[in-house]
Amino acid sequence: MHSEELAALATLIRSQRSAALGTLREASPFVSMVAYAAEPDFGGLLLHLSRLAAHTRHLLANPQSSLLISERDDERDDPQTLARITLVGAAAPIAAESAAYAAARGSYLARLPAAAPLFEFPDFALFRFVPSQARYVGGFGRIYTLTPEHLRRAAETQ
Amino acid sequence: MHSEELAALATLIRSQRSAALGTLREASPFVSMVAYAAEPDFGGLLLHLSRLAAHTRHLLANPQSSLLISERDDERDDPQTLARITLVGAAAPIAAESAAYAAARGSYLARLPAAAPLFEFPDFALFRFVPSQARYVGGFGRIYTLTPEHLRRAAETQ
Repeated sequence: MHSEELAALATLIRSQRSAALGTLREASPFVSMVAYAAEPDFGGLLLHLSRLAAHTRHLLANPQSSLLISERDDERDDPQTLARITLVGAAAPIAAESAAYAAARGSYLARLPAAAPLFEFPDFALFRFVPSQARYVGGFGRIYTLTPEHLRRAAETQ
Repeated sequence: MHSEELAALATLIRSQRSAALGTLREASPFVSMVAYAAEPDFGGLLLHLSRLAAHTRHLLANPQSSLLISERDDERDDPQTLARITLVGAAAPIAAESAAYAAARGSYLARLPAAAPLFEFPDFALFRFVPSQARYVGGFGRIYTLTPEHLRRAAETQ
């Protein structure tokens, strides 16, 4: 994967802030919208979820999940050429008393400041989604299967 | 559900043309981007998929799937207020020799004309996703669990 492609991937992940989260509901797929903030090295993506929401219950029962980050549709002729990345991995809550929590909260609120009041709500928790594999489609014919190492290299660009 | 809310839902489904498709890959969720065209009565959503793509193989092995249609992020303060609908259901190919095929192809190409050349490719097939249940979030506090009948009523608005 060329460095320009890695940079394009980093731009995609950094420029968006909502993703489609796939979870398992009784062994069937369930896709919902989530806001996310990527960790600076793309080692994880941070989600702030209410335990009252279906997807949160799904993740607590089975952390296996997937995230899709897509370029926004700009009404081009062919939407199939929009850049997107499918991440496959697992998501688990970050304990509020852990050393990692404050940094994760800071990263999340730097990207999504409007969520600050929700951190006062007891039903909300920060989750860390850790990708184990990814599929990136940068455009026509630009399709790559990626490892976490590719994501880390992408995070080092720009 | 008020008629204005049904109309807003219909606008969401009709105004977008790409969705996040959740499939099962070895019992784990996998979310990818697909283009879609809704049938006029919202009884089904049409996808045109390559049998070479991972999501197509997943659907052929297990038709249980989910689609998320989201309003485009307009950079508002809080992306959690974007309208979106999660559809849960099953997707199966429409036989090219069936009576339904020509109408489905017409509906699909009316919405996604740039896909016309792909209909010449032997690895592509039209799939019909049939929702059995849906969850609509119209905005803050506007959350509804919907049946196919609600979708049909939404399709009658405007």
